[in-house]
Amino acid sequence: MYVIVVYDAAPKRGVKLMKFLRQHLNWVQNSVFEGELTESGFENLKHGIKDIINDKKDSVIYYRFDSQNYHDRGIIGVEKNEIDSFI
Amino acid sequence: MYVIVVYDAAPKRGVKLMKFLRQHLNWVQNSVFEGELTESGFENLKHGIKDIINDKKDSVIYYRFDSQNYHDRGIIGVEKNEIDSFI
Repeated sequence: MYVIVVYDAAPKRGVKLMKFLRQHLNWVQNSVFEGELTESGFENLKHGIKDIINDKKDSVIYYRFDSQNYHDRGIIGVEKNEIDSFI
Repeated sequence: MYVIVVYDAAPKRGVKLMKFLRQHLNWVQNSVFEGELTESGFENLKHGIKDIINDKKDSVIYYRFDSQNYHDRGIIGVEKNEIDSFI
């Protein structure tokens, strides 16, 4: 499955979240990660996110697709991190 | 079509971008918008974004789907803005 994660968290937890998400997904923009995950990988991701955030204050949204062939993905302006540069 | 837009822009342009995007899509989180658009609506959106950002410094990523029935969308923590509260 293909997953997009966006988050809005307090600075300290935001840094922890970024470090955690970077181990599992590709950083593509400030507070935005994308990548392929297995079902179990996705479950681990959710548990890890829950361990880090304050669920009364921080907000994480995930979008999950069967595969990357959602319709289209485009960039306007700077591409902060080219995804296909990842093996 | 269903569109998700995430952006990373300098503060002044970020505010302008937010005000513009709010006229066309639902604000769901800091720098994240979602919503249904027609083909022409999407083209207008892109033109409007290009008019606002500095394409050498700012970054806007859009994800476009034929419809909202991509696999799944979930929230962990606070839902900053419930989408279905929109008519």
